[in-house]
Amino acid sequence: MPLMDCTFCRIVAGTEPSQTVHEDEHTIAFLNIAQATRGHALVVPRVHYRDLGEIPVETAAQVMRAAVEVSRRLAGALGAAGVNLWHASGETAWQSVFHFHLHVVPRFEPTDLTPPWTEVEHPVESLAGLAEEIKAWH
Amino acid sequence: MPLMDCTFCRIVAGTEPSQTVHEDEHTIAFLNIAQATRGHALVVPRVHYRDLGEIPVETAAQVMRAAVEVSRRLAGALGAAGVNLWHASGETAWQSVFHFHLHVVPRFEPTDLTPPWTEVEHPVESLAGLAEEIKAWH
Repeated sequence: MPLMDCTFCRIVAGTEPSQTVHEDEHTIAFLNIAQATRGHALVVPRVHYRDLGEIPVETAAQVMRAAVEVSRRLAGALGAAGVNLWHASGETAWQSVFHFHLHVVPRFEPTDLTPPWTEVEHPVESLAGLAEEIKAWH
Repeated sequence: MPLMDCTFCRIVAGTEPSQTVHEDEHTIAFLNIAQATRGHALVVPRVHYRDLGEIPVETAAQVMRAAVEVSRRLAGALGAAGVNLWHASGETAWQSVFHFHLHVVPRFEPTDLTPPWTEVEHPVESLAGLAEEIKAWH
């Protein structure tokens, strides 16, 4: 059931204006009103799920299928040289709309975004204990 | 066929050391040696594809399925409060290893990464022409 206090549910329902760039049975994609770059789009499932903790795995897969299509369309239509995908789950990760969404961000210059982290490489063997800790969780 | 000059193909083949955190029929996930945050992992398809332009849609969907599992594992094992997904296709988008990969980055503090863009909102109706341009492409 759509949540009428959710902007993206209202976009899916057509009661909130949006500029869609792709639609299929499971998802819609529309231009983000905050355009990080020209053509920056969001892919959302039609059904409301909050985040990676809540979305069914198959619904996330549908979102990715649509994101591949949208990325190719943005590259073709706008001549983007590259594309980034970005997703945020949780306020700590800067999620601001709590309806699962995947950003598709066309890139025109290496300088049109800011790298989200600085690369510092670790010797691979130094990560063994951490991998064990992660694998031990169930 | 694995490409022996591709680091991620060698990781899939087991001839390059890695610290894996998840494996399935289609993908493997391992800790990035450049740990943006503690537990930062990469999900890659076992078969070599360069980027979003080349990967089959169904393979991308498999990568997303694995990323959902890995994100839940990282949250559970490490107590992450949030998760980001990140993908780069093309040098312009900062791709540095040309075997498709999806970053799964656990988040512990809102300040442990740098926002990749600044939010500047546009009136939705001002985006209509751009959406038409994108939809017209085929």
